[in-house]
Amino acid sequence: MPNAIPADELRARLKRFRAMLDRERLGGALITDFINVRYLSGFAGGDSALFVTPRQRLLLTDFRYVEEAAHQAPGWKVVTKPAALLEKAGVLAKKFRVRKLAVESGHLTLGMAKGLQKFARGVALKPMNQMVEELRIIKSPWEVRQLEAALRIQERCFGEVCRMLRPGIREYEAAAEMRYRLVKGGADDQSFECMFQWGSNASRPHGRPTDRKLQESNIVLIDWGAKFNGYHGDLTRTFFLGTIPARLRKIHEIVAQAQQQAVERIAPGVEFANVDRAARDLIDKAGYKKQFGHSTGHGIGLKIHEAPTLSWRGKGVLKPGMVVTVEPGIYLPGAGGVRIEDDVLVTERGCRKLSRVPIGLRWNGANA
Amino acid sequence: MPNAIPADELRARLKRFRAMLDRERLGGALITDFINVRYLSGFAGGDSALFVTPRQRLLLTDFRYVEEAAHQAPGWKVVTKPAALLEKAGVLAKKFRVRKLAVESGHLTLGMAKGLQKFARGVALKPMNQMVEELRIIKSPWEVRQLEAALRIQERCFGEVCRMLRPGIREYEAAAEMRYRLVKGGADDQSFECMFQWGSNASRPHGRPTDRKLQESNIVLIDWGAKFNGYHGDLTRTFFLGTIPARLRKIHEIVAQAQQQAVERIAPGVEFANVDRAARDLIDKAGYKKQFGHSTGHGIGLKIHEAPTLSWRGKGVLKPGMVVTVEPGIYLPGAGGVRIEDDVLVTERGCRKLSRVPIGLRWNGANA
Repeated sequence: MPNAIPADELRARLKRFRAMLDRERLGGALITDFINVRYLSGFAGGDSALFVTPRQRLLLTDFRYVEEAAHQAPGWKVVTKPAALLEKAGVLAKKFRVRKLAVESGHLTLGMAKGLQKFARGVALKPMNQMVEELRIIKSPWEVRQLEAALRIQERCFGEVCRMLRPGIREYEAAAEMRYRLVKGGADDQSFECMFQWGSNASRPHGRPTDRKLQESNIVLIDWGAKFNGYHGDLTRTFFLGTIPARLRKIHEIVAQAQQQAVERIAPGVEFANVDRAARDLIDKAGYKKQFGHSTGHGIGLKIHEAPTLSWRGKGVLKPGMVVTVEPGIYLPGAGGVRIEDDVLVTERGCRKLSRVPIGLRWNGANA
Repeated sequence: MPNAIPADELRARLKRFRAMLDRERLGGALITDFINVRYLSGFAGGDSALFVTPRQRLLLTDFRYVEEAAHQAPGWKVVTKPAALLEKAGVLAKKFRVRKLAVESGHLTLGMAKGLQKFARGVALKPMNQMVEELRIIKSPWEVRQLEAALRIQERCFGEVCRMLRPGIREYEAAAEMRYRLVKGGADDQSFECMFQWGSNASRPHGRPTDRKLQESNIVLIDWGAKFNGYHGDLTRTFFLGTIPARLRKIHEIVAQAQQQAVERIAPGVEFANVDRAARDLIDKAGYKKQFGHSTGHGIGLKIHEAPTLSWRGKGVLKPGMVVTVEPGIYLPGAGGVRIEDDVLVTERGCRKLSRVPIGLRWNGANA
């Protein structure tokens, strides 16, 4: 049950989008990526598209969604005929005499483009990269509140699931408990397939839950998220049950420090690669260069992975309103791994951590 | 934890795929749709692609998946460099001197095609529709067993959740219970966002669960599915709690009859549209033509919706090994709706219903 997006918020998004069309001298745009449809129109159903010109805005859908569309996307004209989506778009492009129609190069497939062209003879398709995605990078205060709501849900569930961790519980059982609690707790869903990794399994950077049973003494890596009103939270904590092997205690300390340094580096104007470097330099110096194979973070929002990418290759600088994960890790195959991840908002003067789960060697944040 | 696909099954799939390449005179194919990657290679990870020529078979992935790929896709050469997927593909197309490279027109976006072409100068891309999908339409006995396993899980969970239905339970709470039980019961996940619709909500053909509370007397529509080892079950039952309004009892009877007639029509050689007609004619005659707005069924397998489509527009005939849903419905806005759905295998001589949940006015199948 999505909360309605405030009307002024929707107006502002559309205005920015039309300014982009104008800047690029495009007569109209067809938005087919469903996340972008939702962002621009507020409509959260499925199998739909938007057709936007400087003066028109139409929501192309089918009979199943007419009521929802009218309710969630006020101001948009709902078009249900002809039956096929691309045919609708072609008919409209001709009707409004759009000469150059922007399409989403990251979403429109070769087959869709061919189908569209069939119905839109004489219309030039202009594949555009990152039209709406560009707008989505900067989160409004309302969007930040949705992310915070997602985090509050997932933080509560984290406590509940951690209290259930007893020797013998299997990774997939803990994952099922988390998902159940997230949904019962008000999330739309989990943000992604949550990772629960016991012991040496924690060294697999993208492991799915297995049937491994938790031991008396084990390292526990949990990477989990709640999706709320379309917005994706994404956190990781790694902690210990029972005795703590010296080597793993050490890498936990290094990762925690690296993560803190990277968070502290976050401010408007700072290059993406610079944030990555803040974490990476410390890990490299500690001798674990090859054990940190992924980037330091990524944007979150209506998608779990979106721009910007905080990696050594990342180009660009942080701006107020961006929300990024900061998640360095060290993985020791056969022994275990540590990753610590928070979600951070870039503010006018620096940054603010949106997540509130303590970091420590024990799940409740205790460092003993 | 996917079960391994039997080696002979994988060999047969690849052989059929290469025969298709040969028939179409294609020097190689790039498979980027992840479902198709899994079908052909057995690899169930992510962010990967296949590069297939008459003599070579390579799995393009990154460092995160090397171990899994080697394990799940024996016989495939794992390629991790260069870093970008499309660059890997371009390098290979040139290395193996592929002149005409088949790509998936239903998956490759305009942006990906542009990127690939940059790395594969001189290679002609040949967008192909339904290459692997064509193979996937006919299910092997092993695949049918995976679908049956999914159905056994979801049938058990249906009983468990129905026993929990008390006045006051909200749609989304029941949905959360179902999902939890599916995952705990051994499913990879739910097949799709399960629909739980109480009372007049049952008239919304694609409704998401709301916070509506169940009443003492209510119609209950549940459309739910378990995904097991990648394969998607998909069933719907509609039943009553408390007193049964005469009009809804009547449409339940009509839909049940229509569904049975459509199932009985299923056999090799029968046109898709003919199965749709079997259900539709009966509903039309009963006076509910406009209240049955969707098609009668669709294929299920590694995707929840796949070929064939059993609709009035569907072209083609049923063949042994196809598995389809049969799901007519009647929706009365403001009053409620009834849909009944089973999953049916086309056999050599006729068909076999794979699902085993009784159909009746009460959830346990009782008709009183």
